[in-house]
Amino acid sequence: MIIILKPIATKKDADEIIAQIEGLGLKPLYMPGVERTVLGAIGDERVLAGLHLESHPLVERITPILTPYKMVSRDIHPENTVVDIGNVPVGGKPFVVIAGPCAVETREQMIATALAVKEAGAHCLRGGAFKPRSSPYSFQGLGVKGLRILKEAGQKTGLSVTTEVVEAGDVPIVEPYADALQVGARNMQNFRLLTKLGQCRKPVILKRGMAATVEDLLLAAEYIVAEGNPNVILCERGIRTFETATRNTLDLNAIPFLKQKSHLPVIVDPSHGTGIRDYVAPMAKAAAACGADGLLIEVHINPKEALSDGQQSLYPEQFSRLMKELKPFVKAAGRELTT
Amino acid sequence: MIIILKPIATKKDADEIIAQIEGLGLKPLYMPGVERTVLGAIGDERVLAGLHLESHPLVERITPILTPYKMVSRDIHPENTVVDIGNVPVGGKPFVVIAGPCAVETREQMIATALAVKEAGAHCLRGGAFKPRSSPYSFQGLGVKGLRILKEAGQKTGLSVTTEVVEAGDVPIVEPYADALQVGARNMQNFRLLTKLGQCRKPVILKRGMAATVEDLLLAAEYIVAEGNPNVILCERGIRTFETATRNTLDLNAIPFLKQKSHLPVIVDPSHGTGIRDYVAPMAKAAAACGADGLLIEVHINPKEALSDGQQSLYPEQFSRLMKELKPFVKAAGRELTT
Amino acid sequence: MIIILKPIATKKDADEIIAQIEGLGLKPLYMPGVERTVLGAIGDERVLAGLHLESHPLVERITPILTPYKMVSRDIHPENTVVDIGNVPVGGKPFVVIAGPCAVETREQMIATALAVKEAGAHCLRGGAFKPRSSPYSFQGLGVKGLRILKEAGQKTGLSVTTEVVEAGDVPIVEPYADALQVGARNMQNFRLLTKLGQCRKPVILKRGMAATVEDLLLAAEYIVAEGNPNVILCERGIRTFETATRNTLDLNAIPFLKQKSHLPVIVDPSHGTGIRDYVAPMAKAAAACGADGLLIEVHINPKEALSDGQQSLYPEQFSRLMKELKPFVKAAGRELTT
Amino acid sequence: MIIILKPIATKKDADEIIAQIEGLGLKPLYMPGVERTVLGAIGDERVLAGLHLESHPLVERITPILTPYKMVSRDIHPENTVVDIGNVPVGGKPFVVIAGPCAVETREQMIATALAVKEAGAHCLRGGAFKPRSSPYSFQGLGVKGLRILKEAGQKTGLSVTTEVVEAGDVPIVEPYADALQVGARNMQNFRLLTKLGQCRKPVILKRGMAATVEDLLLAAEYIVAEGNPNVILCERGIRTFETATRNTLDLNAIPFLKQKSHLPVIVDPSHGTGIRDYVAPMAKAAAACGADGLLIEVHINPKEALSDGQQSLYPEQFSRLMKELKPFVKAAGRELTT
Repeated sequence: MIIILKPIATKKDADEIIAQIEGLGLKPLYMPGVERTVLGAIGDERVLAGLHLESHPLVERITPILTPYKMVSRDIHPENTVVDIGNVPVGGKPFVVIAGPCAVETREQMIATALAVKEAGAHCLRGGAFKPRSSPYSFQGLGVKGLRILKEAGQKTGLSVTTEVVEAGDVPIVEPYADALQVGARNMQNFRLLTKLGQCRKPVILKRGMAATVEDLLLAAEYIVAEGNPNVILCERGIRTFETATRNTLDLNAIPFLKQKSHLPVIVDPSHGTGIRDYVAPMAKAAAACGADGLLIEVHINPKEALSDGQQSLYPEQFSRLMKELKPFVKAAGRELTT
Repeated sequence: MIIILKPIATKKDADEIIAQIEGLGLKPLYMPGVERTVLGAIGDERVLAGLHLESHPLVERITPILTPYKMVSRDIHPENTVVDIGNVPVGGKPFVVIAGPCAVETREQMIATALAVKEAGAHCLRGGAFKPRSSPYSFQGLGVKGLRILKEAGQKTGLSVTTEVVEAGDVPIVEPYADALQVGARNMQNFRLLTKLGQCRKPVILKRGMAATVEDLLLAAEYIVAEGNPNVILCERGIRTFETATRNTLDLNAIPFLKQKSHLPVIVDPSHGTGIRDYVAPMAKAAAACGADGLLIEVHINPKEALSDGQQSLYPEQFSRLMKELKPFVKAAGRELTT
Repeated sequence: MIIILKPIATKKDADEIIAQIEGLGLKPLYMPGVERTVLGAIGDERVLAGLHLESHPLVERITPILTPYKMVSRDIHPENTVVDIGNVPVGGKPFVVIAGPCAVETREQMIATALAVKEAGAHCLRGGAFKPRSSPYSFQGLGVKGLRILKEAGQKTGLSVTTEVVEAGDVPIVEPYADALQVGARNMQNFRLLTKLGQCRKPVILKRGMAATVEDLLLAAEYIVAEGNPNVILCERGIRTFETATRNTLDLNAIPFLKQKSHLPVIVDPSHGTGIRDYVAPMAKAAAACGADGLLIEVHINPKEALSDGQQSLYPEQFSRLMKELKPFVKAAGRELTT
Repeated sequence: MIIILKPIATKKDADEIIAQIEGLGLKPLYMPGVERTVLGAIGDERVLAGLHLESHPLVERITPILTPYKMVSRDIHPENTVVDIGNVPVGGKPFVVIAGPCAVETREQMIATALAVKEAGAHCLRGGAFKPRSSPYSFQGLGVKGLRILKEAGQKTGLSVTTEVVEAGDVPIVEPYADALQVGARNMQNFRLLTKLGQCRKPVILKRGMAATVEDLLLAAEYIVAEGNPNVILCERGIRTFETATRNTLDLNAIPFLKQKSHLPVIVDPSHGTGIRDYVAPMAKAAAACGADGLLIEVHINPKEALSDGQQSLYPEQFSRLMKELKPFVKAAGRELTT
């Protein structure tokens, strides 16, 4: 860790901090400069957190040398992690497509959509039973009834299923119905939920928050892994910026960044990432091209009647065409798309 | 509601949508233009949500005429709402200052800080027992033990107390210890928590999310009020922008906006809003000047030793000076600061 | 145009505005509602700008129905525009790669880089002679001497050349040396420069500003086209967001948006869009995948010695590998990459 | 400067860089760590720019210790700079209000507005003759004719005048008509213009760009000061964020930051900072409260008829009321408002 002192700090102030660093077993460094004195601490700087040097009135700023996350870092775990959603491996050579409606609305809608995405070649099925909605006047999901329908749709099609869990207390309720549990963007920093998911064995699809940096996303994943569950899949789904032409700004730069810094699989949700049906297919291809391990795509049997997010849901025939068009992109990226 | 059709939409397409609008009891309008056809719907457009016109493949975009929130709007409730935190009214003529440490760390720290902020003239005491932290390796709070210490500190000083609740399931645990419950920025769209808080009678201090627009904040408040609890205090605490010189960008524009659109009280947290001790006092004064109803300020008996957010916590003597300096600003704004 | 009146507006106020709309030859519409009165104006709403209704004290807000840009819109010009940079067509079936150093530094550096990118298959050569730099203490470019070197490098390799022009007054100086003139992100709203470029015939590569929406970009292009120069190429190069892991956030959503709304060619600059050498290749492939017409890439014969932007410049062998790897992505997107 | 090497860097790589640092006359430091090696350079690190270490393939990142700006920094110039706009000092005890229309539209409008703001107590007069506008179809200003009218209005009222200059080549044209030259937000990084303004003696009001950090703003000021003109006034006018309820997000955090880091005067433009007439007065008071040296406010004799920015212009009576209401806030901030 590098500690830059304020110009008014004296040699005595520096010596006090140096003594604290030594007290924690790290090797201190003293670098007096013309305008500022700089201190260094060599060793596992994470133990320095206890000193709270950032709060010291004579410290101008501190610069960590190491990343704040450890277990999700590629530094200490160079090989890719492969996470199995049911019998579908994510993070290896196969490119994975998870598709389905935003929300489970009725048994008919869910089964019909499941059959359609299966037919088109999807590998897993998504469908929300608990829906966090910005307005209290919007459809909030079918709850456990929705979970039952989702599971039935999975069984009918042989597809693994994923669904969102919105609160720590719901984990035991949702877990039996799903092969993977999704954490929505608004819950990425719901640390109670992350901790609870760390204590179960089901894979977790962790969506990036709208105001979360990629480093925040890795720290959120660290919560889950540190608690004991190594099966985390990161998901880029767009961030909030000044641009309003699209619902979110899909940050595909995050893909090479996350693949370089972490060993966890990374998928992309172009449906929320754009919010506009026409842009889902081009951005799905772009995600495959820049190295994503898979996609999470909203498909609805009849988007005009969808109770949520209809404007970003693909029609089944659009999804089917996308699956065909994706193949050469996935292959060019050195991966395989089996449909 | 205004519905702008795509250029390819025909008269027949328009007629179908018009029939749907009429079917819901609204008065439709047909406005054919040279480049686009525009439809209108006169009446309570909120019933139109069921049509999901935004998902219609021939609709280019829709423009609502009314705000998406109702009960928190000044349109239907023109007078200011005054919310009582214990015996402290917020939203009336008195300007309210809530102060205390970010987290309850020890009994000694909490009591000493409480006595100091009481002496300086604060009206309520804050202190976190459950701390959501970005890193799993940071201090996570004392839990119920912290709540007990906080309550004792409140009783010793005669100050009302406020503390954060992080999950719906915790509401019954936290409620007996606090005069108001805070919802943190990361939980502003934890709708399960909002709904639960709507079912209790304790006042709620609702902090704006880092990526939340002021309209999102009002919609989150609507969740609580719609569920039956009218005692909501809105809190501006900074948003995430490209500027990194400060921890967040304190959006004081939000104060006149929220005071104009809503009848709810609005307070400002300049500690999180800046993240830097030296900027807390100037921004506290600015908040008073532009019409805020009060402040939420972090004070620590010894910021150098604080287990969280020490760099933005005021020393007791700084807080005491701020309380004196605030007075003429509060008075110029037509309010009263009693200390 | 849709005009939403404030609740306090009377029938008389509405009648006055209706009379003004009629006075301009448009057909007015009167839509009284329960909470708000809404007015409409049918016809070419752009003539309404003269009424400045957005400033009217009784108008709550106005919603335009048409886009604010006209000549660059696909509405009135459905076919793709193809712009020729020298003998290289941009916007048709061929996928175009423009490559070269950020700045012309020396004759040796420029010629060597030009030979390397030519060898790898680039179609055009870039190199800056006038460099806008954030710090007054950074290298500012060689000026006209740099232009001469660039032209020589183009002639030696047979590559068309593009270079940045930073001020209206420089247009006649730069024009003779280049086959296309670039407008940098910081100058996207330098309207004097845009107007001047509209009066010349050379193609213009217009880079999106760091805080510019895609609509702002189209309006900037409209300045050039409206002045008489139809040869505009749009360039996405990243926007400024809260994310600091990369220099900018490359907004690839902009590609399908711009291709859908406008007939102009769109290229992508993954070098500035990421700011990090390792991420240039994946984002170049993503750009090809989502429908871009070409790329603008920084390559330097020796990035370690580059006087500007070295950390985002590719080594010649990296560029050569990228050109090979791009081919299947370009083909999958229905385009052709000839090298 | 602190240089963090990649894990793959060897002792030999480190030695090479150390030799380069020594070669420039700085004292190098070698800090081998468990996961990363860190190097330091003690002395005037600005000479290290020539090494371009940020581009070195084995360097992970570098952290400067000193600010990139020098002459505008309070470190080397602790006292406040006072800049005179005509006979009006900015940056001392008096709080300064510059008011007037967005654009000079007609002689009658300008003179009437000038008389009104003078009567209300303004100290300087503003009015734009060259208007950069997002759309080519908007009013672009009267040019030199507008400058003549502005100067006449200044002479009639005895007010000093300020106006925008949009291009380096215009500086000699505009200079004779104005007591201070404004640089608009879109031109904050028009380095040619900044350099030219650095060569003249007239004070410069430098507005922050919509995507510019406060550090970028100080670097832009450094361009002017480094060229020889010390008379720079910084102006916060709002930045672009995801919030769309207001035209921009006025970043008042910037005021204490800029006053702490720099000796230059800082003023605030609440008209552009909010874009909404009703919020101008509260934000003007907030600006005074947090330590601004003055205000730049748009006032129009008849905002309903304004050719630009009418919705954010105050009516003369609103401005007059604001000037009265400002007084106690200015006094509480330890300054003086003479009207």
